[in-house]
Amino acid sequence: MTIRTSLLTATCAVTVLATAPFAVAQEKPIIRDAEYRILERQHGDRWTAEDTEIDAKLAELRENNGGKPPNILYILLDDIGFGEFGMPDLDVIRGYSTPEISKFAEQGMSMMRMYSEPSCTPTRVAMITGRHPVRTGFDEAKAVPEGEGLAAGEVTIAEILSDVGYATAHIGKWHMGDIEQSYAINQGFDYAEHPIHQQAQLALMNTTALNEGHISGVDMRLRSDELMLDDTFRIDPFAMVYNIVGEKGGKPREVGMEPGQKFSQDDYLAMGQRYQDKTLEQLEQMAAGDKPFFLQYWPLIPISFTRTDIEQAQTLNGGPIAEAIVNIDTYVGEILDRVDELGIAENTVVVIMGDNGPFMEFVDRSGQSDRIYRGGKTEHLEGGVRVNAFVRWPEVIEAGSRVKDITHVSDLFTTFARLGDAEAGIPRDRIIDGVDQLPLWLKGETYGRRDYVFIYEGFVLKSLVKQQFKMHLPPPGGNPILASMYDLYKNPREDRPQDSIQVGVGFGANFSLMAQRHLGMKKQYPDQAPGHGELYGGIENLRPETKALVENIMFGQSLTAGSE
Amino acid sequence: MTIRTSLLTATCAVTVLATAPFAVAQEKPIIRDAEYRILERQHGDRWTAEDTEIDAKLAELRENNGGKPPNILYILLDDIGFGEFGMPDLDVIRGYSTPEISKFAEQGMSMMRMYSEPSCTPTRVAMITGRHPVRTGFDEAKAVPEGEGLAAGEVTIAEILSDVGYATAHIGKWHMGDIEQSYAINQGFDYAEHPIHQQAQLALMNTTALNEGHISGVDMRLRSDELMLDDTFRIDPFAMVYNIVGEKGGKPREVGMEPGQKFSQDDYLAMGQRYQDKTLEQLEQMAAGDKPFFLQYWPLIPISFTRTDIEQAQTLNGGPIAEAIVNIDTYVGEILDRVDELGIAENTVVVIMGDNGPFMEFVDRSGQSDRIYRGGKTEHLEGGVRVNAFVRWPEVIEAGSRVKDITHVSDLFTTFARLGDAEAGIPRDRIIDGVDQLPLWLKGETYGRRDYVFIYEGFVLKSLVKQQFKMHLPPPGGNPILASMYDLYKNPREDRPQDSIQVGVGFGANFSLMAQRHLGMKKQYPDQAPGHGELYGGIENLRPETKALVENIMFGQSLTAGSE
Repeated sequence: MTIRTSLLTATCAVTVLATAPFAVAQEKPIIRDAEYRILERQHGDRWTAEDTEIDAKLAELRENNGGKPPNILYILLDDIGFGEFGMPDLDVIRGYSTPEISKFAEQGMSMMRMYSEPSCTPTRVAMITGRHPVRTGFDEAKAVPEGEGLAAGEVTIAEILSDVGYATAHIGKWHMGDIEQSYAINQGFDYAEHPIHQQAQLALMNTTALNEGHISGVDMRLRSDELMLDDTFRIDPFAMVYNIVGEKGGKPREVGMEPGQKFSQDDYLAMGQRYQDKTLEQLEQMAAGDKPFFLQYWPLIPISFTRTDIEQAQTLNGGPIAEAIVNIDTYVGEILDRVDELGIAENTVVVIMGDNGPFMEFVDRSGQSDRIYRGGKTEHLEGGVRVNAFVRWPEVIEAGSRVKDITHVSDLFTTFARLGDAEAGIPRDRIIDGVDQLPLWLKGETYGRRDYVFIYEGFVLKSLVKQQFKMHLPPPGGNPILASMYDLYKNPREDRPQDSIQVGVGFGANFSLMAQRHLGMKKQYPDQAPGHGELYGGIENLRPETKALVENIMFGQSLTAGSE
Repeated sequence: MTIRTSLLTATCAVTVLATAPFAVAQEKPIIRDAEYRILERQHGDRWTAEDTEIDAKLAELRENNGGKPPNILYILLDDIGFGEFGMPDLDVIRGYSTPEISKFAEQGMSMMRMYSEPSCTPTRVAMITGRHPVRTGFDEAKAVPEGEGLAAGEVTIAEILSDVGYATAHIGKWHMGDIEQSYAINQGFDYAEHPIHQQAQLALMNTTALNEGHISGVDMRLRSDELMLDDTFRIDPFAMVYNIVGEKGGKPREVGMEPGQKFSQDDYLAMGQRYQDKTLEQLEQMAAGDKPFFLQYWPLIPISFTRTDIEQAQTLNGGPIAEAIVNIDTYVGEILDRVDELGIAENTVVVIMGDNGPFMEFVDRSGQSDRIYRGGKTEHLEGGVRVNAFVRWPEVIEAGSRVKDITHVSDLFTTFARLGDAEAGIPRDRIIDGVDQLPLWLKGETYGRRDYVFIYEGFVLKSLVKQQFKMHLPPPGGNPILASMYDLYKNPREDRPQDSIQVGVGFGANFSLMAQRHLGMKKQYPDQAPGHGELYGGIENLRPETKALVENIMFGQSLTAGSE
């Protein structure tokens, strides 16, 4: 595990992490945030009893599966918030439907109150490390290259599962950094193929989108050369690295781009299709192998901005993202069919979910629309962080069940670790936010182990959720009296703060204590710094224009290097 | 039928309605609004072919049912908008669930795009007459007695079904007038038991609500006697007539109130229970009879404002209306069980729906909450007029189906008439807005016969819906350029008007033509006047305080009588 031999550079303190062997680490308990420990104190005895029962069940399932823990297939859909897929009652609202995912939802459990982080990178970091992104120091990969990424010292679920014998692969969107230590093959995956950046590069800064007038800022034709002193400010998107492929222990290569090539929407769609094909290929290879597998498929679509690829609208909605949601539903259906055909459905836990709400600023154009919850991507409002999430494990998880227990995307880290009989690999030297939700999955509603969520926007704690209540915090340094409180059942849109008679005197103070405990524990376990390094490090076949870009960016970054 | 012998007083013209016998009336086509005729011109041939097929199917079903058309049970729930019941995916939003109605929904068809009118009285008038309430002149029964109601000249679905041999009964909320001609027993029902007014009297102006401080305006204890010159302005709610019972051709009697009695929340709940019991009783009697039956059950709850009857909250929500929604779900479940036990499920068409959105001004207190659609009761916004609506006819209507076709509550009039083989009774001397939706029910999605809705608030046309688009009209006399247009799939909350490039030049003009056609036809078929008469006419056992109230009100009303 990378962590054993690396240093974590903390923002407030430098911490040398233990290099102790596994067995020793295992004896220590997982370090939990205060809020979890308060629940544990009240329910610990019951949880211990449940865990004994669940461990026996898992052992039995492994025994029936040739001694192997189950495969895990994790499909994460981009920028689709709660109510946008897998809920046929809401199809009428949006004018499109997702029959394949709806069918899948009926075969498994709907986690109706899953919280993501409010944006792509933090959701992915939370899932893969089991920690609030703020703790890792890496919260948001920018739309431009920056020489930053997920630190090598973070322990990922892929590393943990890999260490106990899982075959691991990642296909599709990654979005966790443009430096060597942050690539998927250096974060626990045996095989990976992914873009370095996100769809702002791929689907928005392409020739097609430019011609449709979606982004004039980077359109060279609209530049006034005479007045432009800095030729490097408007980055040439075509010089950025696109798609890399590699294997653990090796070096990745960029594939699919020639020097001088201008990326188009057709290239974007081909890239999306390539990830789909690669996922199917990996699925087949992994199913044929002896190891249990952990396969992540994080598609690029439904993100789509241009209208050229809408040959014939399939939906009443007609928006490019709405159309692409129907396409991704077909993609997902194909994957699920393949799981069936390969005969591995019974021993494969499949999770499908969204990563955050939609970008509300272009919902009209995209065809995404207002949902019950207010707000979208980047926001701490429920509309930013509530997503649909479904898990299927035939005969184990109750088909067609819906649970209202609170879950957070970081819980998948801990839950997958337990599924893989790999809890010993969870690091014991840092706070783990992810809660084991196997009791919820196996025993059903009310067996969840979380009644709270901390919601950050970037590095700022913005909201506290406890039970059905939510407190919006004032800005850092602001008067605590400015905090407002909401009953999410009575006001899901969070626009009518409750008065103290409604919520009961003292309630606000309880929230305040909750925030204090959470922030107070950071003195002992401070937030870390992200990974920094050479932009596109380790990629051996950089194009000439990419090398020029790297030089420009690294020059700019070097000017502030002294401040870190 | 009452209409044959009555005069309708029109607002602009006096029309003497034909007294011709049935057979002659039948030869004439039903008079349709322009918008329907535009659709008929495009689809008439197909519709005729479908109708032949459907008529054969209905004849076959009657044959299998001893020559009788099916029973019709119509349950209308008060002030519950789209997304508040029968959609388990949304339970998590509100913190309560309606398992009985959700089960029912899965046994039948969900009309996902049912439009009601924006308030109780107009929805009920539209359903029972098949006409926009504005045409009847009777749009909203006030919270206080006024001597107004549904005119005798209106032809109700109960009259039509009664004329072809149905047994008819109405139990529960009525809310269509406080004059003799408007009572249910004088509008086609063999038997009826209902309050004269609505729940503002029953659930809000009762002693319990007063003590909880919900309405201080009518609290005698808060009055300053010295300054009060008019003793009749604040009506004593306890003097109003409560519940009447009667039979067709007879006189109704008030039951359940003694002189001097102060109505309490306990009385309200007892009244609600009484309607439930009476509905079960009627169901048994009617099932035992030879006739097909038409039974309307319009419960009082979920409307509930006081907290005294929440012994122990059943829900996570805890609001009084939220709690009562769970209670009404249990009530409905009991009715449906009885239908099964009586062995009449197969030949009974059951429709369950809401009548309009919730009163948004007290959603926090009531436990009702924001939904996907913006707005609520009294508003032309989708949140005011979109309701859940489910229809079940085992083996005939596809179980678990969801249809996105537009329907309007007035369509039930026409559809029920056809179900009862009673289309000949639909009057041919006035515009009928209700569209026959049996093709939709029997053949499924895309077979609906309506792609438009006119939405009035009171007597003012406020919005036009056509396909997925909606135009908000400027106020009467306002500049047409102030109209705004919305794509409901992309902006269900109707808060981001589309620009003309988005919707296509000329689109606004098409909406304008639609409004002109609709309003233009009123020259030939003018809106009528409501019924007027003696307050509480025909009720023989008025209490002394009621007689005093009648005298006061009728004196006030007489002062303007000359203006009509």
